[in-house]
Amino acid sequence: MSKHEHNKDEHTTADSRFMRMALDLARNGIGSVEPNPAVGCVLVKHGQVIGRGYHKAFGGPHAEVEALSDADAKKNSVRRATAYVTLEPCCHHGKTPPCTDALIEAGVSRVVVAVRDNAPHVAGNGIKALRSAGVSVTTGVLADEAMALNWWFFHYHMTGRPWVICKWAQSIDGKCAFRDSAAHGQWITNAQSRKDVHKTRRRCQAVLVGVGTVITDDPELTARPALERYPARVVLDSSLRTPLKSKLLRPADNETIIITTEQAAKEKADKLAELEATHAKVAKVTADADGKCDLGAVLKLLGKLGMSQMLVEGGPTVHAAFLKAQLANELNIYIAPKILGRTGTADISKAVTKSADMLRLKDVNTRKLGNDTLVSAICAI
Amino acid sequence: MSKHEHNKDEHTTADSRFMRMALDLARNGIGSVEPNPAVGCVLVKHGQVIGRGYHKAFGGPHAEVEALSDADAKKNSVRRATAYVTLEPCCHHGKTPPCTDALIEAGVSRVVVAVRDNAPHVAGNGIKALRSAGVSVTTGVLADEAMALNWWFFHYHMTGRPWVICKWAQSIDGKCAFRDSAAHGQWITNAQSRKDVHKTRRRCQAVLVGVGTVITDDPELTARPALERYPARVVLDSSLRTPLKSKLLRPADNETIIITTEQAAKEKADKLAELEATHAKVAKVTADADGKCDLGAVLKLLGKLGMSQMLVEGGPTVHAAFLKAQLANELNIYIAPKILGRTGTADISKAVTKSADMLRLKDVNTRKLGNDTLVSAICAI
Repeated sequence: MSKHEHNKDEHTTADSRFMRMALDLARNGIGSVEPNPAVGCVLVKHGQVIGRGYHKAFGGPHAEVEALSDADAKKNSVRRATAYVTLEPCCHHGKTPPCTDALIEAGVSRVVVAVRDNAPHVAGNGIKALRSAGVSVTTGVLADEAMALNWWFFHYHMTGRPWVICKWAQSIDGKCAFRDSAAHGQWITNAQSRKDVHKTRRRCQAVLVGVGTVITDDPELTARPALERYPARVVLDSSLRTPLKSKLLRPADNETIIITTEQAAKEKADKLAELEATHAKVAKVTADADGKCDLGAVLKLLGKLGMSQMLVEGGPTVHAAFLKAQLANELNIYIAPKILGRTGTADISKAVTKSADMLRLKDVNTRKLGNDTLVSAICAI
Repeated sequence: MSKHEHNKDEHTTADSRFMRMALDLARNGIGSVEPNPAVGCVLVKHGQVIGRGYHKAFGGPHAEVEALSDADAKKNSVRRATAYVTLEPCCHHGKTPPCTDALIEAGVSRVVVAVRDNAPHVAGNGIKALRSAGVSVTTGVLADEAMALNWWFFHYHMTGRPWVICKWAQSIDGKCAFRDSAAHGQWITNAQSRKDVHKTRRRCQAVLVGVGTVITDDPELTARPALERYPARVVLDSSLRTPLKSKLLRPADNETIIITTEQAAKEKADKLAELEATHAKVAKVTADADGKCDLGAVLKLLGKLGMSQMLVEGGPTVHAAFLKAQLANELNIYIAPKILGRTGTADISKAVTKSADMLRLKDVNTRKLGNDTLVSAICAI
């Protein structure tokens, strides 16, 4: 065994530099690879980059295979090269053959891994497979950055719950809607902000709204432009109030899941049967102390269905519930330069009723979208 | 007369290019030149820049003189040169001699002026003086940009009222204060935001607060670091409620002006006398329909005192009054990434009570100040 296998801290400045290249490549996949994580790979020989690749789209080749193909296309031999990969290479037959095999067959002599894959079917087995084949492996190079790149992925495999992104649009004074939408319009934010939301939807396997939003706005919750994979539309409906003529219940490429409490399902058996007769699925969870769907149970259910990123689209009651339960992982707040005062409604202030719930966001990112501002933050890992 | 004197549109691409340089130079003076406007000047001969200058500080040389000195220092002759000035040169003896004389004596043959100075003692007289001396004058080059640079200045001379900047700090949900400041602290925004406010204070000749803020926060309202010129501290106090032990009433380099209604001055003659016995001045204005100080009258009074830019620091009641009266010219909203809900107070939403008052801000600028965001906008010119 080489000494590289024993000391994860033993890496060079060059290692960090090539890993940063791989991380930058990885970012290009965000929005197309989900529910896979974004991964980048750089092949280096004698200090020269001889191949680059990243995972481009779900179902397509992994980053390592892309980089090997790139080297091949450029007629570079990868024999005795070093591969820099932002995530532990896979060792299982999924939609594509194992990347460990591809690296070993190509004759790569050293693999530098930013961070281990904590998905149960990998979880160190990729590194083991490489070492068994005599490949030297270094881990932990820019591990924090590599984790930040795919936090939702690590979170999902650690907790079994989807990474929850709470998103809302508001005026400067925290109103999420016009009181008189007939007079002032449906949208508080501008077209650029709304387009940005569609990009976030594309990362997610589920989009969740409260039944209040379904009753008031009757949204479709599709991602535009359409995708090959459609995020499921999830409605939190503790008392089975979803109107039968809601757009969400019509046939669509996006699955609709209505989540209610076991008690409501019993008490409103007729409504339950009517909803089950539509294109929607109805799922039951335990109720919390207030008789509402227990959010921990909701996330566990969705996690079991394989949903690793979920966008919570509101309304304010639902956001408040996720914030209070400390189950929101990321906030995306679109702020339009309007002050609505009493002409606005759906006040996001409702999310906080007592001192312990006061939110002080850290790791804040600000982005200008025309006249609107997007404030985003990571709440909890 | 040359043809340049007749057609303000008749200027070249080169003229625009040199005027943009002059505008960029001018910007360096913002924050030090007030109550003078920021002005820049570029001297050009045979297509080459031979001197640059800008008005650096109130009381110091004007931009034209700075540019002439610069050319002189570089041993460049300005005879038959063209001067690009962002504002009509002055023609009066103020703190410095007339710039028109300096340009004429130096032998400049052409002056390109972005925009006329609308201060009553200039108002076209500078251009006239140049032309009388046989200097060719072109006006209107990048006039809009030159006006935007010193909007407050043109506004002041057009209306006789100070340019009103409403500034507040708030949480994402529009709360301007913690309900329990003993527990959560006095500041909602971060140190970087608060430092930025001091910069704005330095541009202003007056800082205004409502008496509610004086009673609750007992602020000092000084600009840090200290300045040679100190903005006056103005208190809107319709019912003469300013506590006699307020810090604002103590001797300081900043003058304090308490503005009240004529009626309150009559009804509370004792309190009036007590306040007049402090270091503050008391001024009386007519009352509006609600018995509050009429804001139009307040601004007229302050304008007559020579105040051309004023920062309104709150609280929300005062901001609401300025917004409703459409007397706010600029908004600076510092947003901290916190959601305070019921743990916050002083809700900026109060500013809007009916549809006609709903604010939709245009010309929005967004700036990141650490984790805070500054949203600023021009309301009305």
